[in-house]
Amino acid sequence: MQIGIVGLGLIGGSLAIDLRSQGHRILAASRRASTCETAVKRGMADAASQDFALLSEAEVIFLCPPLGVLQQTVEKLLPHLSPSTILTDVGSVKLSVVEAIAPLWPNFVGGHPMAGTTESGIDAALSGLFQNRAYVLTPIESTPPEAVETVATLARSLQSVVYQCHPADHDRAVAWISHLPVMVSASLIAACQGEANPIVLDLAQKFASSGFRDTSRVGGGNPELGVMMAHYNQSALLDALEQYQTQLAQLTDLVRQSRWEDLNEILTSTQTGRSHFSIPDA
Amino acid sequence: MQIGIVGLGLIGGSLAIDLRSQGHRILAASRRASTCETAVKRGMADAASQDFALLSEAEVIFLCPPLGVLQQTVEKLLPHLSPSTILTDVGSVKLSVVEAIAPLWPNFVGGHPMAGTTESGIDAALSGLFQNRAYVLTPIESTPPEAVETVATLARSLQSVVYQCHPADHDRAVAWISHLPVMVSASLIAACQGEANPIVLDLAQKFASSGFRDTSRVGGGNPELGVMMAHYNQSALLDALEQYQTQLAQLTDLVRQSRWEDLNEILTSTQTGRSHFSIPDA
Repeated sequence: MQIGIVGLGLIGGSLAIDLRSQGHRILAASRRASTCETAVKRGMADAASQDFALLSEAEVIFLCPPLGVLQQTVEKLLPHLSPSTILTDVGSVKLSVVEAIAPLWPNFVGGHPMAGTTESGIDAALSGLFQNRAYVLTPIESTPPEAVETVATLARSLQSVVYQCHPADHDRAVAWISHLPVMVSASLIAACQGEANPIVLDLAQKFASSGFRDTSRVGGGNPELGVMMAHYNQSALLDALEQYQTQLAQLTDLVRQSRWEDLNEILTSTQTGRSHFSIPDA
Repeated sequence: MQIGIVGLGLIGGSLAIDLRSQGHRILAASRRASTCETAVKRGMADAASQDFALLSEAEVIFLCPPLGVLQQTVEKLLPHLSPSTILTDVGSVKLSVVEAIAPLWPNFVGGHPMAGTTESGIDAALSGLFQNRAYVLTPIESTPPEAVETVATLARSLQSVVYQCHPADHDRAVAWISHLPVMVSASLIAACQGEANPIVLDLAQKFASSGFRDTSRVGGGNPELGVMMAHYNQSALLDALEQYQTQLAQLTDLVRQSRWEDLNEILTSTQTGRSHFSIPDA
């Protein structure tokens, strides 16, 4: 199959590596000439160009630019394509993406391969990134079933676990398990930093151990990613933040009122509840 | 030196192992006869008994019972001791402990070795647990400096990094980096569990990945420990919870008002701020 990749960062680059190793012909596009050269030199792509004309022969194109430029990228790409070309994206939010792209191109399948590392860019791309990870597809009523099946088959060939759901359900689910944790965790760091007594702040910084390390990890990550999540998944994130605040206020009341048995009940339920989430090994 | 250990759980047992391996004579006490037998059989203690009379010769006694029975344990222990005996505890909160024990026994040094594993009990005890970990001592004005120095020397012999601070400052610092994270993390799990749409809850449970894993870890831990923290460090924890809620509400407002540059500023400051905390390797 002739497969196009637009955007050669961590995700686009890793898709190129795995799909080319299966024998597909990879046609890649990047905004930077140097990235195009790197991709061809490293054997990640058969051809790469800054010019979207290169992608006119592609049967499926993976759209992997930053979310903020996805729509304008698609608008520039479309004139080069034949109507049978299947477009799919890899963005971590889906409702706003599907609402923006599906009206422009009926043969579009929203997608979200749930894989990543802390690194980014073409140098971070690696083989096997998607193995055993969820790959979510979010077709809507108007999405052609053949397009969905083509993308699903490619995702399964990466050894991903393919899920299908409505874009809005995807966004609510990732708000809970990915975007809310970033805000909760960042607020923890910010609150600690706000300690007014320099002696206590110094001790807190010295005493920080595995509990603080883990709870603060995603709040200390890439700020641009955090803003992107909030921007493109604003409504689902706000719902989650509001429910979280209600929950935290309830727990705080129990502490304030010394209701230790009720607190024990909540903590017992969260201990059990956590085991229902598919938690990967550390 | 003759060293007493009261309570042979993870901390008491691990102290016994390391201190005995340095040549100290270890006299241990446990509420359970079987634990006493185990301690002697495994070479963790030279002698062990349910009877505190065994500890009358000890020069320094480490108090390692659960926080909830610390005071009553000390009251039963005191009649067996000579006034020169130094008592020190290992509790994870200090102000309430120091306020309870120092008036009963002037030769008392509050202590908190900041080490642990997810396991508990004598079977979890292990050598080297305190190596390179913080060991906090919280003397007050009336604490004899020789007693502090004796405990500090023993802590250093475990290759711990010894800190001294006021009990209240200790408690505020551990509220930030240990007790607040538990409540923040537990509330995350509880809020997710509260998702009313079963399809979304199911997707969230399936999609949960490393971000959720890390942010939810301490909130899915031992409920008794969480209640104990809240109970004995109630006031410092409440302060931290209130400041956290203010911080989170502020961040939520930025999301609601689409103030992406201001959100970026906060997330940039938490990314930098996290690096000022002494974060151990995962």
